[in-house]
Amino acid sequence: MIKDIRVTMMTTIDDDGTLRSRPMVAQQSEFDGDLWFFTWIDSPKVDEVKEHHQVNLSYAEPDDQNYVSISGTAQIVRDKQKVHELWSEYLATWFPKGKDDPNIGLIRVHVTKAEYWDSPSSAMVHAYGY
Amino acid sequence: MIKDIRVTMMTTIDDDGTLRSRPMVAQQSEFDGDLWFFTWIDSPKVDEVKEHHQVNLSYAEPDDQNYVSISGTAQIVRDKQKVHELWSEYLATWFPKGKDDPNIGLIRVHVTKAEYWDSPSSAMVHAYGY
Ligand SMILES: Cc1cc2nc3c(=O)[nH]c(=O)nc-3n(C[C@H](O)[C@H](O)[C@H](O)COP(=O)(O)O)c2cc1C
Repeated sequence: MIKDIRVTMMTTIDDDGTLRSRPMVAQQSEFDGDLWFFTWIDSPKVDEVKEHHQVNLSYAEPDDQNYVSISGTAQIVRDKQKVHELWSEYLATWFPKGKDDPNIGLIRVHVTKAEYWDSPSSAMVHAYGY
Repeated sequence: MIKDIRVTMMTTIDDDGTLRSRPMVAQQSEFDGDLWFFTWIDSPKVDEVKEHHQVNLSYAEPDDQNYVSISGTAQIVRDKQKVHELWSEYLATWFPKGKDDPNIGLIRVHVTKAEYWDSPSSAMVHAYGY
């Protein structure tokens, strides 16, 4: 389930308590409990994540009646080797200077809970973390 | 934009600080700054919303490259007249006993900020609330 996800909406808590979300591309790597995202080191969400570690990743596919909520704690990781390991060419859409841009960092989300729904009337199914 | 939304992911803050989201059907009514959702009065999200008013509504349509983040404050409303006014037959999928079930309530989300993205590389566009 989590493996198929590409673009998720990442919700963070702003400094005034507001909940904000934005589209983020989840990186494809062996799922070991963590999900990885590329980010600019100086972006607002990096400040938000440093202040409030709790994030939510949501994924909705109305056509397939497939909805996922992933709760986790986020951490900013500056690791050149990991950036190189996870880099794919399509990331150039958001990071045009490529993987060696010093302002690129990673957000690691440690998954604490995942829930999903797979039909309009389905009660939620606990998938992970209980 | 907000008018077209049907199923959104609503993110709330759990009592232990965890961010959880779940699919919710936004009701179609004249948009005046508030969005309305049906809920069971005794559901966990009602407790979460009473404790932490801040919520996020996200909406993702990857096929159309359309992503929306709506920040707002939520309030539980028990108002039979409003329930009747907003009720549609398809809600019976989730509320089989119909609009007169005493356990049905409403969540009113007062929108404080909305942001959207309309192409893969788009910088976010502030749509409302600035
Ligand atoms: C489809 C799509 C995918 C995106 N993926 C990423 C991403 O992987 N990393 C990223 O930093 N921004 C990505 N963005 C841009 C973010 O949504 C956001 O606008 C930007 O990161 C600034 O967010 P912030 O102001 O909340 O920090 C993507 C935008 C779209 C439309």
